Amino acid sequence: MSDNRPIGVFDSGIGGITVLKALRAALPHEDLVYLGDTARLPYGTKSPETVTAYATQATKHLMEHGVKMIVIACNTASAVAIGPLTEALKPLPVIGVIEPGAKAGVGATRSGHIGVIATEATVKGGAYARAIHALKPDAFVSQAPCGLFVTLAEEGWVSGDVAEAAAKRYLAPLFRGKNAPDTLVLGCTHFPVLARTIKKVVGKDVKLVDSAATTAKAVQAALADRGLGAKRRGKGKTRFLATDSTERFARVGGIFFGEIIRAKDVELVDIRPS
Amino acid sequence: MSDNRPIGVFDSGIGGITVLKALRAALPHEDLVYLGDTARLPYGTKSPETVTAYATQATKHLMEHGVKMIVIACNTASAVAIGPLTEALKPLPVIGVIEPGAKAGVGATRSGHIGVIATEATVKGGAYARAIHALKPDAFVSQAPCGLFVTLAEEGWVSGDVAEAAAKRYLAPLFRGKNAPDTLVLGCTHFPVLARTIKKVVGKDVKLVDSAATTAKAVQAALADRGLGAKRRGKGKTRFLATDSTERFARVGGIFFGEIIRAKDVELVDIRPS
Repeated sequence: MSDNRPIGVFDSGIGGITVLKALRAALPHEDLVYLGDTARLPYGTKSPETVTAYATQATKHLMEHGVKMIVIACNTASAVAIGPLTEALKPLPVIGVIEPGAKAGVGATRSGHIGVIATEATVKGGAYARAIHALKPDAFVSQAPCGLFVTLAEEGWVSGDVAEAAAKRYLAPLFRGKNAPDTLVLGCTHFPVLARTIKKVVGKDVKLVDSAATTAKAVQAALADRGLGAKRRGKGKTRFLATDSTERFARVGGIFFGEIIRAKDVELVDIRPS
Repeated sequence: MSDNRPIGVFDSGIGGITVLKALRAALPHEDLVYLGDTARLPYGTKSPETVTAYATQATKHLMEHGVKMIVIACNTASAVAIGPLTEALKPLPVIGVIEPGAKAGVGATRSGHIGVIATEATVKGGAYARAIHALKPDAFVSQAPCGLFVTLAEEGWVSGDVAEAAAKRYLAPLFRGKNAPDTLVLGCTHFPVLARTIKKVVGKDVKLVDSAATTAKAVQAALADRGLGAKRRGKGKTRFLATDSTERFARVGGIFFGEIIRAKDVELVDIRPS
Protein backbone atom coordinates (compact mmCIF):
# COMPACT_ATOMS: atom_id res chain seq x y z
CA MET A 1 0.00 0.00 0.00
CA SER A 2 1.15 3.51 -0.68
CA ASP A 3 -0.25 7.01 -0.99
CA ASN A 4 1.48 9.83 -2.85
CA ARG A 5 -0.77 12.63 -1.58
CA PRO A 6 1.04 15.34 0.38
CA ILE A 7 1.18 15.73 4.15
CA GLY A 8 -0.31 19.04 5.37
CA VAL A 9 1.69 20.88 7.99
CA PHE A 10 0.09 23.80 9.79
CA ASP A 11 1.46 26.50 12.09
CA SER A 12 0.32 29.92 13.26
CA GLY A 13 3.29 31.34 11.40
CA ILE A 14 6.86 30.49 10.81
CA GLY A 15 8.16 28.56 13.84
CA GLY A 16 6.54 25.32 12.67
CA ILE A 17 9.18 25.20 9.96
CA THR A 18 11.44 23.51 12.57
CA VAL A 19 8.94 20.61 12.48
CA LEU A 20 8.78 20.74 8.67
CA LYS A 21 12.56 20.44 8.56
CA ALA A 22 12.47 17.36 10.80
CA LEU A 23 9.73 15.82 8.62
CA ARG A 24 11.77 16.39 5.49
CA ALA A 25 14.79 14.73 7.09
CA ALA A 26 12.80 11.73 8.37
CA LEU A 27 10.53 11.33 5.33
CA PRO A 28 12.48 12.53 2.30
CA HIS A 29 10.11 11.00 -0.25
CA GLU A 30 6.98 12.69 1.04
CA ASP A 31 5.44 15.79 -0.53
CA LEU A 32 4.79 18.44 2.13
CA VAL A 33 2.46 21.47 2.08
CA TYR A 34 3.18 23.96 4.84
CA LEU A 35 0.62 26.63 5.76
CA GLY A 36 1.57 29.52 8.06
CA ASP A 37 -1.31 31.73 9.27
CA THR A 38 0.89 34.83 9.23
CA ALA A 39 -2.12 37.18 8.93
CA ARG A 40 -3.17 36.30 12.47
CA LEU A 41 -0.02 35.17 14.24
CA PRO A 42 0.91 34.79 17.02
CA TYR A 43 -1.57 32.36 18.59
CA GLY A 44 0.33 32.18 21.89
CA THR A 45 -1.30 35.26 23.41
CA LYS A 46 -4.85 34.53 22.19
CA SER A 47 -7.82 32.73 23.76
CA PRO A 48 -8.56 29.00 23.22
CA GLU A 49 -11.79 29.87 21.34
CA THR A 50 -10.00 32.18 18.90
CA VAL A 51 -7.08 29.77 18.40
CA THR A 52 -9.52 26.92 17.69
CA ALA A 53 -11.48 29.00 15.17
CA TYR A 54 -8.31 30.09 13.32
CA ALA A 55 -6.76 26.60 13.34
CA THR A 56 -9.98 25.05 12.01
CA GLN A 57 -10.06 27.48 9.06
CA ALA A 58 -6.39 26.86 8.32
CA THR A 59 -6.53 23.09 8.42
CA LYS A 60 -9.72 23.03 6.31
CA HIS A 61 -7.79 25.03 3.73
CA LEU A 62 -5.04 22.40 3.78
CA MET A 63 -7.67 19.72 3.09
CA GLU A 64 -8.44 21.49 -0.20
CA HIS A 65 -4.88 20.61 -1.21
CA GLY A 66 -5.78 16.91 -1.02
CA VAL A 67 -3.58 16.09 1.95
CA LYS A 68 -3.54 12.60 3.48
CA MET A 69 -2.68 13.69 7.02
CA ILE A 70 -2.41 16.91 9.02
CA VAL A 71 0.45 17.78 11.34
CA ILE A 72 -0.29 20.60 13.80
CA ALA A 73 3.24 22.02 14.00
CA CYS A 74 2.15 24.64 16.53
CA ASN A 75 2.27 24.01 20.25
CA THR A 76 -0.48 26.47 21.09
CA ALA A 77 -2.91 25.04 18.52
CA SER A 78 -1.99 21.49 19.54
CA ALA A 79 -2.45 22.36 23.20
CA VAL A 80 -5.88 23.96 22.95
CA ALA A 81 -7.43 22.64 19.71
CA ILE A 82 -6.30 19.10 18.94
CA GLY A 83 -9.66 17.64 20.05
CA PRO A 84 -11.91 19.94 18.00
CA LEU A 85 -9.54 19.72 15.01
CA THR A 86 -9.50 15.91 15.02
CA GLU A 87 -13.31 16.02 15.15
CA ALA A 88 -13.61 18.64 12.38
CA LEU A 89 -11.18 16.89 10.01
CA LYS A 90 -12.43 13.32 10.43
CA PRO A 91 -11.45 10.78 9.11
CA LEU A 92 -8.12 12.49 8.30
CA PRO A 93 -5.37 11.59 10.79
CA VAL A 94 -4.27 14.62 12.82
CA ILE A 95 -0.98 14.64 14.73
CA GLY A 96 0.02 17.39 17.15
CA VAL A 97 3.34 18.23 18.77
CA ILE A 98 2.38 18.01 22.45
CA GLU A 99 2.19 14.23 22.88
CA PRO A 100 5.45 13.53 21.02
CA GLY A 101 7.13 16.29 23.09
CA ALA A 102 5.76 14.88 26.36
CA LYS A 103 6.89 11.39 25.35
CA ALA A 104 10.39 12.63 24.60
CA GLY A 105 10.51 14.46 27.95
CA VAL A 106 9.40 11.37 29.87
CA GLY A 107 11.94 9.27 27.98
CA ALA A 108 14.77 11.68 28.81
CA THR A 109 14.25 12.37 32.53
CA ARG A 110 16.04 10.37 35.21
CA SER A 111 14.95 12.39 38.26
CA GLY A 112 11.31 12.64 37.18
CA HIS A 113 11.40 16.46 37.33
CA ILE A 114 10.62 17.86 33.87
CA GLY A 115 10.71 21.54 32.97
CA VAL A 116 8.47 22.88 30.18
CA ILE A 117 8.86 26.27 28.51
CA ALA A 118 6.24 27.52 26.07
CA THR A 119 3.98 30.45 25.15
CA GLU A 120 1.57 31.94 27.66
CA ALA A 121 -1.43 30.16 26.09
CA THR A 122 0.27 26.75 26.07
CA VAL A 123 1.43 27.04 29.68
CA LYS A 124 -2.00 28.23 30.84
CA GLY A 125 -3.80 25.39 29.08
CA GLY A 126 -1.66 22.85 30.97
CA ALA A 127 -1.63 20.38 28.05
CA TYR A 128 2.02 19.41 28.52
CA ALA A 129 1.57 18.64 32.22
CA ARG A 130 -1.48 16.50 31.38
CA ALA A 131 0.30 14.65 28.58
CA ILE A 132 3.37 14.02 30.78
CA HIS A 133 1.25 12.80 33.71
CA ALA A 134 -0.70 10.48 31.41
CA LEU A 135 2.58 8.75 30.57
CA LYS A 136 4.26 9.07 33.98
CA PRO A 137 1.83 9.84 36.81
CA ASP A 138 4.61 10.49 39.37
CA ALA A 139 6.47 13.06 37.22
CA PHE A 140 6.98 16.54 38.66
CA VAL A 141 6.41 19.26 36.05
CA SER A 142 7.62 22.88 36.33
CA GLN A 143 6.41 25.29 33.66
CA ALA A 144 7.43 28.79 32.59
CA PRO A 145 5.98 31.00 29.83
CA CYS A 146 8.80 32.51 27.72
CA GLY A 147 7.00 34.85 25.34
CA LEU A 148 10.03 36.94 24.42
CA PHE A 149 11.81 33.89 22.96
CA VAL A 150 9.31 33.97 20.09
CA THR A 151 10.24 37.52 19.12
CA LEU A 152 13.95 36.88 19.67
CA ALA A 153 13.81 33.91 17.30
CA GLU A 154 11.88 35.90 14.67
CA GLU A 155 14.34 38.79 14.99
CA GLY A 156 17.19 36.31 14.41
CA TRP A 157 18.70 37.27 17.80
CA VAL A 158 19.32 33.67 18.83
CA SER A 159 22.58 34.33 20.69
CA GLY A 160 24.36 37.32 22.22
CA ASP A 161 23.60 39.70 25.09
CA VAL A 162 19.85 40.11 24.66
CA ALA A 163 19.07 36.42 24.21
CA GLU A 164 21.29 35.45 27.14
CA ALA A 165 19.83 38.06 29.48
CA ALA A 166 16.30 36.93 28.55
CA ALA A 167 17.18 33.25 29.02
CA LYS A 168 18.64 34.01 32.46
CA ARG A 169 15.60 35.99 33.52
CA TYR A 170 13.17 33.29 32.44
CA LEU A 171 15.13 30.16 33.37
CA ALA A 172 17.38 30.92 36.34
CA PRO A 173 14.46 30.72 38.85
CA LEU A 174 13.44 27.33 37.42
CA PHE A 175 16.94 25.83 37.60
CA ARG A 176 17.98 27.09 41.01
CA GLY A 177 18.83 24.54 43.74
CA LYS A 178 19.61 20.86 43.64
CA ASN A 179 16.05 19.73 42.90
CA ALA A 180 16.00 21.50 39.54
CA PRO A 181 14.58 19.71 36.47
CA ASP A 182 17.04 17.40 34.65
CA THR A 183 15.08 17.74 31.39
CA LEU A 184 13.65 20.77 29.62
CA VAL A 185 10.93 20.42 26.99
CA LEU A 186 11.04 23.20 24.38
CA GLY A 187 7.28 23.53 24.10
CA CYS A 188 7.21 26.06 21.28
CA THR A 189 8.41 25.48 17.75
CA HIS A 190 10.38 28.75 17.86
CA PHE A 191 12.61 27.68 20.72
CA PRO A 192 14.97 25.13 19.11
CA VAL A 193 16.90 27.93 17.35
CA LEU A 194 17.70 29.31 20.84
CA ALA A 195 18.92 25.93 22.13
CA ARG A 196 22.58 26.92 22.53
CA THR A 197 21.72 30.05 24.50
CA ILE A 198 19.26 28.11 26.69
CA LYS A 199 21.92 25.44 27.32
CA LYS A 200 24.35 28.13 28.51
CA VAL A 201 21.91 29.13 31.25
CA VAL A 202 20.54 25.75 32.36
CA GLY A 203 23.87 23.92 32.15
CA LYS A 204 25.08 21.10 29.95
CA ASP A 205 23.68 18.34 32.17
CA VAL A 206 20.08 19.33 31.48
CA LYS A 207 18.62 17.47 28.49
CA LEU A 208 16.81 19.71 26.02
CA VAL A 209 13.90 18.01 24.33
CA ASP A 210 12.46 19.42 21.17
CA SER A 211 9.26 18.00 19.74
CA ALA A 212 10.28 18.42 16.08
CA ALA A 213 12.22 15.15 15.78
CA THR A 214 9.79 13.15 17.93
CA THR A 215 6.81 14.51 15.98
CA ALA A 216 8.47 13.42 12.75
CA LYS A 217 8.85 9.93 14.26
CA ALA A 218 5.18 9.89 15.26
CA VAL A 219 4.20 10.86 11.70
CA GLN A 220 6.45 8.14 10.30
CA ALA A 221 4.82 5.53 12.56
CA ALA A 222 1.30 6.71 11.69
CA LEU A 223 2.05 6.52 7.94
CA ALA A 224 3.42 3.00 8.34
CA ASP A 225 0.45 1.86 10.47
CA ARG A 226 -2.07 3.00 7.91
CA GLY A 227 -0.11 2.17 4.77
CA LEU A 228 -0.10 5.82 3.81
CA GLY A 229 3.61 6.26 2.98
CA ALA A 230 4.53 7.72 -0.41
CA LYS A 231 6.09 5.52 -3.05
CA ARG A 232 8.43 7.51 -5.26
CA ARG A 233 12.11 7.39 -6.12
CA GLY A 234 13.11 11.03 -5.97
CA LYS A 235 12.78 13.56 -3.21
CA GLY A 236 9.36 14.89 -2.29
CA LYS A 237 8.43 18.53 -2.95
CA THR A 238 7.87 21.15 -0.27
CA ARG A 239 5.29 23.85 -0.88
CA PHE A 240 4.87 26.98 1.25
CA LEU A 241 1.56 28.82 1.78
CA ALA A 242 1.09 31.91 3.94
CA THR A 243 -1.93 34.07 4.73
CA ASP A 244 0.11 37.31 4.72
CA SER A 245 3.56 38.88 4.27
CA THR A 246 5.23 36.33 2.00
CA GLU A 247 8.45 38.37 1.95
CA ARG A 248 8.76 38.29 5.73
CA PHE A 249 7.75 34.61 5.77
CA ALA A 250 10.62 33.81 3.41
CA ARG A 251 13.17 35.93 5.26
CA VAL A 252 12.35 34.80 8.81
CA GLY A 253 11.40 31.28 7.70
CA GLY A 254 14.94 30.76 6.45
CA ILE A 255 16.17 31.09 10.07
CA PHE A 256 14.08 28.06 11.04
CA PHE A 257 14.48 26.08 7.83
CA GLY A 258 18.26 26.41 7.86
CA GLU A 259 18.25 27.14 4.15
CA ILE A 260 17.11 30.01 1.97
CA ILE A 261 13.41 30.33 1.15
CA ARG A 262 12.64 32.68 -1.73
CA ALA A 263 9.69 35.06 -1.37
CA LYS A 264 8.45 34.07 -4.84
CA ASP A 265 8.17 30.46 -3.70
CA VAL A 266 5.71 31.39 -0.94
CA GLU A 267 2.06 31.49 -2.10
CA LEU A 268 -0.33 33.99 -0.55
CA VAL A 269 -3.65 32.33 0.33
CA ASP A 270 -6.95 33.59 1.77
CA ILE A 271 -8.37 31.11 4.28
CA ARG A 272 -11.11 33.18 5.86
CA PRO A 273 -14.54 31.59 5.73
CA SER A 274 -16.56 33.01 2.84
CA MET B 1 -21.93 74.25 20.31
CA SER B 2 -21.20 70.99 22.04
CA ASP B 3 -21.41 67.26 21.44
CA ASN B 4 -21.55 64.68 24.20
CA ARG B 5 -21.00 61.64 21.99
CA PRO B 6 -17.88 59.62 22.79
CA ILE B 7 -14.55 59.71 20.97
CA GLY B 8 -13.56 56.34 19.49
CA VAL B 9 -9.97 55.29 20.00
CA PHE B 10 -8.62 52.33 18.07
CA ASP B 11 -5.44 50.27 18.32
CA SER B 12 -4.29 46.85 17.15
CA GLY B 13 -4.07 45.89 20.79
CA ILE B 14 -2.98 47.40 24.01
CA GLY B 15 -0.19 49.92 23.29
CA GLY B 16 -2.68 52.58 22.15
CA ILE B 17 -3.68 52.92 25.78
CA THR B 18 -0.72 55.35 26.11
CA VAL B 19 -2.65 57.61 23.71
CA LEU B 20 -5.90 57.01 25.58
CA LYS B 21 -4.18 58.07 28.79
CA ALA B 22 -2.99 61.32 27.19
CA LEU B 23 -6.51 61.96 25.82
CA ARG B 24 -8.01 61.48 29.26
CA ALA B 25 -5.54 63.92 30.77
CA ALA B 26 -6.07 66.57 28.06
CA LEU B 27 -9.84 66.10 27.70
CA PRO B 28 -11.17 64.99 31.09
CA HIS B 29 -14.84 65.68 30.25
CA GLU B 30 -14.92 63.52 27.13
CA ASP B 31 -16.36 60.00 27.03
CA LEU B 32 -13.90 57.61 25.41
CA VAL B 33 -14.44 54.18 23.83
CA TYR B 34 -11.23 52.23 23.28
CA LEU B 35 -11.15 49.22 20.97
CA GLY B 36 -8.13 46.89 20.89
CA ASP B 37 -8.07 44.28 18.09
CA THR B 38 -6.36 41.72 20.34
CA ALA B 39 -7.61 38.78 18.26
CA ARG B 40 -5.34 39.83 15.41
CA LEU B 41 -2.52 41.80 17.00
CA PRO B 42 0.20 42.70 16.27
CA TYR B 43 -0.23 44.69 13.07
CA GLY B 44 3.46 45.68 12.90
CA THR B 45 4.59 42.53 11.10
CA LYS B 46 1.67 42.35 8.66
CA SER B 47 1.11 43.64 5.12
CA PRO B 48 -0.50 47.03 4.34
CA GLU B 49 -3.49 45.28 2.72
CA THR B 50 -4.17 43.14 5.77
CA VAL B 51 -3.66 46.03 8.20
CA THR B 52 -6.06 48.19 6.17
CA ALA B 53 -8.73 45.46 6.11
CA TYR B 54 -8.48 44.86 9.87
CA ALA B 55 -8.44 48.57 10.76
CA THR B 56 -11.49 49.23 8.57
CA GLN B 57 -13.50 46.51 10.34
CA ALA B 58 -12.41 47.80 13.75
CA THR B 59 -13.22 51.45 13.12
CA LYS B 60 -16.58 50.56 11.54
CA HIS B 61 -17.37 48.73 14.76
CA LEU B 62 -16.54 51.87 16.73
CA MET B 63 -18.98 53.83 14.56
CA GLU B 64 -21.75 51.57 15.86
CA HIS B 65 -21.03 53.05 19.28
CA GLY B 66 -22.10 56.48 18.01
CA VAL B 67 -18.68 58.10 18.17
CA LYS B 68 -18.12 61.67 16.96
CA MET B 69 -14.48 61.21 15.98
CA ILE B 70 -11.98 58.38 15.53
CA VAL B 71 -8.43 58.43 16.81
CA ILE B 72 -6.13 55.82 15.26
CA ALA B 73 -3.91 55.22 18.29
CA CYS B 74 -1.75 52.74 16.36
CA ASN B 75 1.29 53.83 14.41
CA THR B 76 1.17 50.94 11.97
CA ALA B 77 -2.50 51.51 11.09
CA SER B 78 -1.94 55.28 10.90
CA ALA B 79 1.10 54.75 8.69
CA VAL B 80 -0.47 52.45 6.13
CA ALA B 81 -4.23 53.03 6.36
CA ILE B 82 -5.09 56.62 7.29
CA GLY B 83 -6.12 57.44 3.70
CA PRO B 84 -8.48 54.49 3.17
CA LEU B 85 -9.85 54.86 6.71
CA THR B 86 -10.65 58.54 6.28
CA GLU B 87 -12.39 57.66 3.03
CA ALA B 88 -14.34 54.74 4.54
CA LEU B 89 -15.50 56.66 7.62
CA LYS B 90 -16.51 59.93 5.91
CA PRO B 91 -17.67 62.42 7.14
CA LEU B 92 -16.36 61.37 10.57
CA PRO B 93 -13.09 63.13 11.46
CA VAL B 94 -10.18 60.67 11.69
CA ILE B 95 -6.95 61.56 13.46
CA GLY B 96 -3.83 59.40 13.35
CA VAL B 97 -0.64 59.48 15.41
CA ILE B 98 1.93 59.93 12.64
CA GLU B 99 1.40 63.61 11.80
CA PRO B 100 1.31 64.75 15.44
CA GLY B 101 4.46 62.69 16.10
CA ALA B 102 6.24 64.16 13.07
CA LYS B 103 5.22 67.67 14.12
CA ALA B 104 6.59 67.12 17.62
CA GLY B 105 9.84 65.77 16.18
CA VAL B 106 10.25 68.74 13.86
CA GLY B 107 9.48 71.10 16.74
CA ALA B 108 12.09 69.48 18.97
CA THR B 109 15.09 69.14 16.65
CA ARG B 110 17.84 71.76 16.50
CA SER B 111 20.29 69.93 14.23
CA GLY B 112 17.63 68.79 11.76
CA HIS B 113 18.61 65.13 12.21
CA ILE B 114 15.61 63.19 13.55
CA GLY B 115 15.68 59.52 14.53
CA VAL B 116 12.51 57.43 14.28
CA ILE B 117 12.02 54.02 15.89
CA ALA B 118 8.93 51.96 15.11
CA THR B 119 7.66 48.53 14.06
CA GLU B 120 8.88 46.88 10.89
CA ALA B 121 5.69 47.78 8.98
CA THR B 122 5.80 51.45 10.01
CA VAL B 123 9.48 51.83 9.12
CA LYS B 124 9.02 50.08 5.76
CA GLY B 125 6.05 52.23 4.83
CA GLY B 126 8.14 55.38 5.34
CA ALA B 127 5.17 57.44 6.59
CA TYR B 128 7.17 59.22 9.32
CA ALA B 129 9.90 60.30 6.90
CA ARG B 130 7.22 61.63 4.51
CA ALA B 131 5.36 63.47 7.27
CA ILE B 132 8.59 64.99 8.62
CA HIS B 133 9.75 66.07 5.16
CA ALA B 134 6.36 67.64 4.43
CA LEU B 135 6.91 69.91 7.43
CA LYS B 136 10.67 70.36 7.09
CA PRO B 137 12.02 69.43 3.65
CA ASP B 138 15.68 69.69 4.73
CA ALA B 139 15.35 67.36 7.72
CA PHE B 140 17.55 64.26 7.80
CA VAL B 141 15.65 61.20 9.02
CA SER B 142 17.26 57.98 10.33
CA GLN B 143 14.93 55.08 11.02
CA ALA B 144 15.28 51.77 12.85
CA PRO B 145 12.71 49.00 13.35
CA CYS B 146 12.66 47.87 17.01
CA GLY B 147 10.26 44.93 17.02
CA LEU B 148 11.43 43.44 20.31
CA PHE B 149 10.43 46.60 22.21
CA VAL B 150 6.78 45.66 21.63
CA THR B 151 7.18 42.29 23.34
CA LEU B 152 9.34 43.77 26.11
CA ALA B 153 6.65 46.33 26.88
CA GLU B 154 3.90 43.68 26.87
CA GLU B 155 6.01 41.45 29.12
CA GLY B 156 6.40 44.39 31.52
CA TRP B 157 10.20 44.18 31.14
CA VAL B 158 10.62 47.93 30.68
CA SER B 159 13.94 48.20 32.52
CA GLY B 160 16.74 45.87 33.56
CA ASP B 161 19.30 43.73 31.71
CA VAL B 162 17.15 42.50 28.83
CA ALA B 163 15.60 45.86 27.96
CA GLU B 164 18.97 47.62 28.18
CA ALA B 165 20.76 45.05 26.03
CA ALA B 166 18.00 45.29 23.41
CA ALA B 167 18.05 49.10 23.46
CA LYS B 168 21.83 49.06 22.97
CA ARG B 169 21.64 46.63 20.10
CA TYR B 170 18.94 48.61 18.30
CA LEU B 171 20.02 52.16 19.07
CA ALA B 172 23.81 52.27 19.50
CA PRO B 173 24.44 52.13 15.71
CA LEU B 174 22.02 55.04 15.20
CA PHE B 175 23.57 57.25 17.87
CA ARG B 176 27.25 56.65 17.09
CA GLY B 177 29.42 59.62 16.07
CA LYS B 178 28.93 63.33 16.33
CA ASN B 179 26.31 63.61 13.60
CA ALA B 180 23.83 61.48 15.51
CA PRO B 181 20.16 62.56 15.74
CA ASP B 182 19.36 65.09 18.48
CA THR B 183 15.71 63.96 18.60
CA LEU B 184 14.17 60.51 18.69
CA VAL B 185 10.52 59.96 17.73
CA LEU B 186 8.97 56.97 19.53
CA GLY B 187 6.94 55.82 16.55
CA CYS B 188 5.07 53.02 18.28
CA THR B 189 2.56 53.42 21.08
CA HIS B 190 4.31 50.68 23.08
CA PHE B 191 7.60 52.52 23.33
CA PRO B 192 6.89 55.32 25.85
CA VAL B 193 6.95 52.80 28.73
CA LEU B 194 10.57 52.05 27.73
CA ALA B 195 11.56 55.74 27.69
CA ARG B 196 13.91 55.60 30.68
CA THR B 197 15.81 52.64 29.29
CA ILE B 198 16.03 54.24 25.84
CA LYS B 199 17.32 57.47 27.41
CA LYS B 200 20.10 55.51 29.15
CA VAL B 201 21.41 54.37 25.78
CA VAL B 202 20.94 57.47 23.63
CA GLY B 203 22.02 59.93 26.33
CA LYS B 204 20.16 62.65 28.16
CA ASP B 205 20.77 65.30 25.47
CA VAL B 206 18.60 63.49 22.93
CA LYS B 207 14.99 64.62 23.07
CA LEU B 208 12.47 61.78 23.12
CA VAL B 209 9.23 62.61 21.35
CA ASP B 210 6.15 60.56 21.98
CA SER B 211 3.08 61.09 19.85
CA ALA B 212 0.59 60.45 22.67
CA ALA B 213 0.61 63.99 24.08
CA THR B 214 0.77 65.67 20.66
CA THR B 215 -2.05 63.49 19.34
CA ALA B 216 -4.17 64.52 22.32
CA LYS B 217 -3.45 68.15 21.43
CA ALA B 218 -4.43 67.55 17.80
CA VAL B 219 -7.70 65.97 18.96
CA GLN B 220 -8.35 68.92 21.27
CA ALA B 221 -7.82 71.37 18.41
CA ALA B 222 -10.04 69.38 16.03
CA LEU B 223 -12.86 69.26 18.61
CA ALA B 224 -12.60 73.03 19.16
CA ASP B 225 -12.51 73.76 15.40
CA ARG B 226 -15.67 71.80 14.76
CA GLY B 227 -17.51 72.67 17.96
CA LEU B 228 -17.54 69.00 18.91
CA GLY B 229 -16.33 69.28 22.51
CA ALA B 230 -18.41 67.65 25.25
CA LYS B 231 -20.33 69.81 27.67
CA ARG B 232 -20.62 68.12 31.03
CA ARG B 233 -19.54 68.90 34.56
CA GLY B 234 -18.15 65.59 35.78
CA LYS B 235 -15.46 63.40 34.33
CA GLY B 236 -16.09 61.50 31.13
CA LYS B 237 -16.34 57.70 31.14
CA THR B 238 -13.79 55.36 29.57
CA ARG B 239 -15.02 52.12 28.07
CA PHE B 240 -12.76 49.24 26.96
CA LEU B 241 -13.58 46.82 24.13
CA ALA B 242 -11.33 43.98 22.95
CA THR B 243 -11.71 41.34 20.25
CA ASP B 244 -10.03 38.62 22.36
CA SER B 245 -8.36 37.79 25.68
CA THR B 246 -9.98 40.35 27.97
CA GLU B 247 -7.99 39.03 30.96
CA ARG B 248 -4.66 39.64 29.22
CA PHE B 249 -5.92 43.01 27.92
CA ALA B 250 -6.65 44.11 31.48
CA ARG B 251 -3.38 42.80 32.91
CA VAL B 252 -1.04 44.16 30.22
CA GLY B 253 -3.19 47.25 29.58
CA GLY B 254 -2.59 48.36 33.15
CA ILE B 255 1.14 48.72 32.33
CA PHE B 256 0.28 51.33 29.70
CA PHE B 257 -2.66 52.94 31.48
CA GLY B 258 -0.67 53.45 34.69
CA GLU B 259 -3.65 52.28 36.71
CA ILE B 260 -5.45 49.00 37.25
CA ILE B 261 -7.90 47.81 34.60
CA ARG B 262 -10.21 45.02 35.77
CA ALA B 263 -10.89 42.13 33.37
CA LYS B 264 -14.62 42.40 34.02
CA ASP B 265 -14.56 45.99 32.75
CA VAL B 266 -13.26 44.90 29.35
CA GLU B 267 -16.02 43.88 26.91
CA LEU B 268 -15.36 41.13 24.38
CA VAL B 269 -16.64 42.13 20.91
CA ASP B 270 -16.79 40.39 17.54
CA ILE B 271 -15.91 42.80 14.72
CA ARG B 272 -15.49 40.38 11.83
CA PRO B 273 -17.67 41.17 8.84
CA SER B 274 -20.78 39.00 8.85
